[in-house]
Amino acid sequence: MNSCSLDRLNDKIKTFSKFGDTGKGGITRFSLSPEALEARAEFVKRMEAIGATVITDDMGNMYATIEGTEELPAILSGSHMDSVRQGGNYDGILGVLTAMEVVETIVKEKIPHRHPITVVVWTNEEGARFEPAMMSSGVICGKFNKADMLASVAKDKPGYTFGEALESSGYIGEEANRANSAKMSALVELHIEQGPVLETEGYDIGIVEGVCGMINYEFTFTGQAGHAGTTPMKYRKDAMYAATKTIQYLHDELDELDSKLVYTTGKMSCHPNIHTIIPDEVKFTLDARHQDPEVIKQVLAIIHRIPEEVEKCQVSYQEAWSRKTVTFTSELVDYVEKSAQEFGYSNRRIYSGPGHDAQFMIDMIPTTMIFVPSVGGHSHCEIEYTPVENCLKGANVLLKTLLYIDQQ
Amino acid sequence: MNSCSLDRLNDKIKTFSKFGDTGKGGITRFSLSPEALEARAEFVKRMEAIGATVITDDMGNMYATIEGTEELPAILSGSHMDSVRQGGNYDGILGVLTAMEVVETIVKEKIPHRHPITVVVWTNEEGARFEPAMMSSGVICGKFNKADMLASVAKDKPGYTFGEALESSGYIGEEANRANSAKMSALVELHIEQGPVLETEGYDIGIVEGVCGMINYEFTFTGQAGHAGTTPMKYRKDAMYAATKTIQYLHDELDELDSKLVYTTGKMSCHPNIHTIIPDEVKFTLDARHQDPEVIKQVLAIIHRIPEEVEKCQVSYQEAWSRKTVTFTSELVDYVEKSAQEFGYSNRRIYSGPGHDAQFMIDMIPTTMIFVPSVGGHSHCEIEYTPVENCLKGANVLLKTLLYIDQQ
Repeated sequence: MNSCSLDRLNDKIKTFSKFGDTGKGGITRFSLSPEALEARAEFVKRMEAIGATVITDDMGNMYATIEGTEELPAILSGSHMDSVRQGGNYDGILGVLTAMEVVETIVKEKIPHRHPITVVVWTNEEGARFEPAMMSSGVICGKFNKADMLASVAKDKPGYTFGEALESSGYIGEEANRANSAKMSALVELHIEQGPVLETEGYDIGIVEGVCGMINYEFTFTGQAGHAGTTPMKYRKDAMYAATKTIQYLHDELDELDSKLVYTTGKMSCHPNIHTIIPDEVKFTLDARHQDPEVIKQVLAIIHRIPEEVEKCQVSYQEAWSRKTVTFTSELVDYVEKSAQEFGYSNRRIYSGPGHDAQFMIDMIPTTMIFVPSVGGHSHCEIEYTPVENCLKGANVLLKTLLYIDQQ
Repeated sequence: MNSCSLDRLNDKIKTFSKFGDTGKGGITRFSLSPEALEARAEFVKRMEAIGATVITDDMGNMYATIEGTEELPAILSGSHMDSVRQGGNYDGILGVLTAMEVVETIVKEKIPHRHPITVVVWTNEEGARFEPAMMSSGVICGKFNKADMLASVAKDKPGYTFGEALESSGYIGEEANRANSAKMSALVELHIEQGPVLETEGYDIGIVEGVCGMINYEFTFTGQAGHAGTTPMKYRKDAMYAATKTIQYLHDELDELDSKLVYTTGKMSCHPNIHTIIPDEVKFTLDARHQDPEVIKQVLAIIHRIPEEVEKCQVSYQEAWSRKTVTFTSELVDYVEKSAQEFGYSNRRIYSGPGHDAQFMIDMIPTTMIFVPSVGGHSHCEIEYTPVENCLKGANVLLKTLLYIDQQ
């Protein structure tokens, strides 16, 4: 059975980890930054070296294609090369590097394939410097308006837009080069799990069935400021107490729902945030995710049961955003499972909590994802890590899956 | 029975409200600022106009004295003229203006008195620009080291010290001019309540028995950051949940203690404070105040019962500061009560929650305070308000109390 090369994959990981190296085990490689352009150049050089043709579209997405034996739509695989500030060497880039390794294996081993195979690199997945995340896959899938995206301003440089960064990058191509359902037949994106499940439960491979639906709500509690030393408890309208009591209520109720539900209060603000003043305004967020829309409905019902007034404070809330559950193409999911089993790799089915470019692409072409474990569940940080042996298992499953799709 | 003048007191309030006028009903009058120096000049002008002699000490505290008929230590009354940013026209300044009005009444009505009577203005009570609060009464009472205080740096101007501000103010006098127990026999400070009790319960005058003891603790909860979408609930170490659960515990337990206990979580921080990240560090404060040290001990026992680990997060806490209960001189407290009753003003005994210069002076000379109501309990804000009719009642009680002390 054909398989990828550990040494080659290791070399790829090591090489790309230099572009934006923080010197502390991770990278800062914002989309279209000088570091990201170095990574792009290396990508182009390596793909051309194995006979691929590289083109870019009008959002700077790159497509490196090797021809198949027939005139068929291409099979895509890839991810993104940009990172968050002080991010790691695996999130996104591993999906590009394993796709490169798969194509290199196909070329070097002369593995027959009917379809062209394309390694894709999406521009600005993280949205770390220019919001939003998943910007360029979003544009080509019609989720975002291109003009709005080009006008997105750098968080750290007033007035400097994504459009200007793209213009000066040298990576703008034709709109006609965009991936579409006529030219492409399927997409498989490999990614690190970004969570602890696979590692903790001892699995090599996550068979990703879809991306969890999510809701994100912002709550505001409005009370009355007062001096901590002069206001008897019975006269207080303490927004902090009202907020913490509500967080406790949410935990008590949400814990009764399905055990796969995850929910988080990650952000809180307190006004005026002075130790001797009773807070008059406290805000917090609630992020909740589950694959089953029925469970998300139950979460909403629990939110809607919060009274208008808690501990004499006014309560208001609003949806900041939400995402419906995305279900990947079952045939492709089955191919991933079959491939993992043929290699003898332990595996389990899993839903992705975070969003990925693949969740947009599913609207255009059959799509699925492969997860490899994240040691300690770490992600978006410098200690993000997956042993190269496990990265190789992911690459092998990706290779096999693409070949199954090719035989379709 | 002699009483103060409503018109004169009203004129004083209106005049001093111009110095630092924010145009929105309040003042910003940081200690030794140009606005504060205008207020000082007006104070000197008015006190000299009624025959007082004004001196300053080495901390810029001002003493305006009218002689008595005998060679006795002076009776002091006064407060501070500085404010917080966007503060009100009553906190501090009303204690100065009522003392000025009392002395003016004594002079104009030729009310006989054996002791000299001194209106005192303490420098930098609020500590709004130069920390700490109650700086200059603190120095002369030996609570703070003078050199440290002179080196206190402005919060808004790097390198600019309180010592420099004092030097350039023109209000530095001799250390020998400081108030002390040989030259002074008693202090009565009138202040707004800064809380809702007197107004809510319908009292004109608060007979202040002392200043509540307090403790202020800082708690830190350390968990494990993780992606909100990938970390199953059972694997989480959510510092936000551990913190809110502990706040709930504190409320449940502290509510069982004496109803006069007040406690507040006014400050909270969350790290990294991103809606999609499980917080790895949450800090909050607990401020608790009660007049009875036994109750404060019970609060400490409740704090000490918090386990070292809550919801798998490490818990640590430390005292940020504390203050022992201050009990004012009972004879003076009785004089205040007797005076209020003679005028027929409704009154109740009360403990001060906030700190005041008077709490330092009690270590040096017999001391007490008089409270007038704060409408809505508001303080340290532009809507701070006490009707002038009620300010007058406070002035009358102050007048009567000083005359009782004079007869001692």
